[in-house]
Amino acid sequence: MESRVITLTTDFGHRDPFVGIMKGVILKINPRAHLVDLCHEVEPGNVLRAAYILNAAIPFFPPHTIHLVVVDPGVGSDRRKIVVKAGDAFFVAPDNGVLTFPLKNPKLETVVEILDQDLFLQPTSATFHGRDIFAPAAAHLSLGKNIKSYGGKVGDPKVLELPAPEILEEGRMKGAVVYTDWFGNLATNLGLPPEEEIFLWRVRTAADFVAPLHTHYAEAAEGKLAALVNSWGQVELFVKDGSASERFGLKEGEEIFLEKIRI
Amino acid sequence: MESRVITLTTDFGHRDPFVGIMKGVILKINPRAHLVDLCHEVEPGNVLRAAYILNAAIPFFPPHTIHLVVVDPGVGSDRRKIVVKAGDAFFVAPDNGVLTFPLKNPKLETVVEILDQDLFLQPTSATFHGRDIFAPAAAHLSLGKNIKSYGGKVGDPKVLELPAPEILEEGRMKGAVVYTDWFGNLATNLGLPPEEEIFLWRVRTAADFVAPLHTHYAEAAEGKLAALVNSWGQVELFVKDGSASERFGLKEGEEIFLEKIRI
Amino acid sequence: MESRVITLTTDFGHRDPFVGIMKGVILKINPRAHLVDLCHEVEPGNVLRAAYILNAAIPFFPPHTIHLVVVDPGVGSDRRKIVVKAGDAFFVAPDNGVLTFPLKNPKLETVVEILDQDLFLQPTSATFHGRDIFAPAAAHLSLGKNIKSYGGKVGDPKVLELPAPEILEEGRMKGAVVYTDWFGNLATNLGLPPEEEIFLWRVRTAADFVAPLHTHYAEAAEGKLAALVNSWGQVELFVKDGSASERFGLKEGEEIFLEKIRI
Repeated sequence: MESRVITLTTDFGHRDPFVGIMKGVILKINPRAHLVDLCHEVEPGNVLRAAYILNAAIPFFPPHTIHLVVVDPGVGSDRRKIVVKAGDAFFVAPDNGVLTFPLKNPKLETVVEILDQDLFLQPTSATFHGRDIFAPAAAHLSLGKNIKSYGGKVGDPKVLELPAPEILEEGRMKGAVVYTDWFGNLATNLGLPPEEEIFLWRVRTAADFVAPLHTHYAEAAEGKLAALVNSWGQVELFVKDGSASERFGLKEGEEIFLEKIRI
Repeated sequence: MESRVITLTTDFGHRDPFVGIMKGVILKINPRAHLVDLCHEVEPGNVLRAAYILNAAIPFFPPHTIHLVVVDPGVGSDRRKIVVKAGDAFFVAPDNGVLTFPLKNPKLETVVEILDQDLFLQPTSATFHGRDIFAPAAAHLSLGKNIKSYGGKVGDPKVLELPAPEILEEGRMKGAVVYTDWFGNLATNLGLPPEEEIFLWRVRTAADFVAPLHTHYAEAAEGKLAALVNSWGQVELFVKDGSASERFGLKEGEEIFLEKIRI
Repeated sequence: MESRVITLTTDFGHRDPFVGIMKGVILKINPRAHLVDLCHEVEPGNVLRAAYILNAAIPFFPPHTIHLVVVDPGVGSDRRKIVVKAGDAFFVAPDNGVLTFPLKNPKLETVVEILDQDLFLQPTSATFHGRDIFAPAAAHLSLGKNIKSYGGKVGDPKVLELPAPEILEEGRMKGAVVYTDWFGNLATNLGLPPEEEIFLWRVRTAADFVAPLHTHYAEAAEGKLAALVNSWGQVELFVKDGSASERFGLKEGEEIFLEKIRI
């Protein structure tokens, strides 16, 4: 059996042994699993943020990678636990919307509920399904267990409503900040229309700050609000050598406008 | 030689390269060691917290796992350095009480001092035994080195005094908060007596806050102090979607009472 | 192909998936790469700190380790991207001084620019070269790609000016704090002259605090400023069970004097 990559995304932080324990559980079942931490500092219970984090990472992992996501405020309730195959990747997570992007992937193949209790650690707790259910489910998947053997098909998996960009008029779009990173850069759900030149566009915030579009961070003037198209194709606000989020009081949800400069 | 799991637990944090350096030392000796981080954000010098973190993790790792623990405020003093075998796990750590739980394990087999200086990195510093002594000791253990070859038997390894729960009267117990996690949940040293129904019990704090016992987090009312039996069998205080520690000013050492509801 | 160690050092923090994504990129190219995190909490853009972190780690890794460093405030600008071989280690990083120590290593062998665009992820972004250029460059190196095939030789790689210790008079040296760690210990660029006894020397700060030299942390009096020679041979200021940085308001750049006690 070839070594398989399993990524881990949680809101468990780094102060406790919870992530390490999930890894122990996985390695007990498949000693050859190749474990990669994606993020463990998701804000507790922030399912939407975890969904964005996962979505940014999926295309860059090897085929057949298994993405294990445990951001699970409903642990122990009757929310379902699911395994998903979309494109060439697998996902193991609570059915709370954290898999919104794979579930919207046109290459979505399978969504099944994890019901086979033989997979679970015994006794199975009601408070740490990451350890007792999700980690073993992912580990068995990495050993080649058939996804259909986990349980029945799920026809209506939970999908989050995502803010959609709007075209207000020709050359003017409204979107929103969807992700703030550690540097204080603010990614939006806006993309530059195809074949447009970036220097003909600018970004405007709800508070009427205006930011020119640059090609890269170092090109901007220090201390000024600036924008670029980031490495995922999203329009992103930033401040060179600073935090756009802190300096301009911007955060997730904030309205953002992308407008063509009239010459 | 099969790949062996070595877990790492330290108070080194994530701002410095100290943990990475220990991993380099291990991989130089055993390139096939499978390294798993358990926790590196133990509060500096908090040996008791490291002991609890380790104890929570031990049962979930593969047989023959080596747990390397470097929370070592006495580094360079004459405190001993020990290797321990208890049950099917191995431990490498300073003899400062951090191995209290394995040392109390009825399946404790061996406690030896690390004396064989051929194992040490040269020159051996007086300030970073994690790098110069503990990491090499664990790496050689992972290669199959006989535990008895490390040095002489230790008859009186240091064991921490742990707060013990008290039965005050039939249906009333006194315990203490022993562990606060990243979510602000507070684990205690109290367990529900066997074959008792959780809905017949409640928790009372020293300040007279009362918390009903639930089966899982999502079941509780928002903002209220609540309790459950956690995935290690401990009675745990929590606030749904919040931090019990912050909202109710509770922390480690706090007295907690578990009492049967009179009907 | 034997498994090769690749270390990762970035200023990406732990809140985002950026480090995990770089690991995905590497494992897609070389599934057998052995990835070790050195540090991801470098202060954003602090190239000098990253240089010190790397320097502390290099000697402790296996031969042929590849150190991948992405602290890259100039990403997307015309700063070069380089691969370096020095001693038995390889380095992949922006040419911004972060490789100052390997570049000053007398065993420096090769410095080449990364120009071969066949290595890059396509499309190549202007904002995440860690993902699109550096990670693939390191991954191919781990598969044995010849360092000379990356691009042309670089004759003038960027080297940072490091604060140099000065001998003020016989038995009196001036240096500076160069690194503050998570414990608040302050490493300096001063070393004790060879064959000198530590108890004959003391440290003086610019604000005239005086610290005796000890052999290890536990030896000092609680709450007092103290010093020792750390595990890299540097004179280091500390406070037993506390933070020298916080209690004495000391930080990087601060002048420090090492003086022989006149008896």
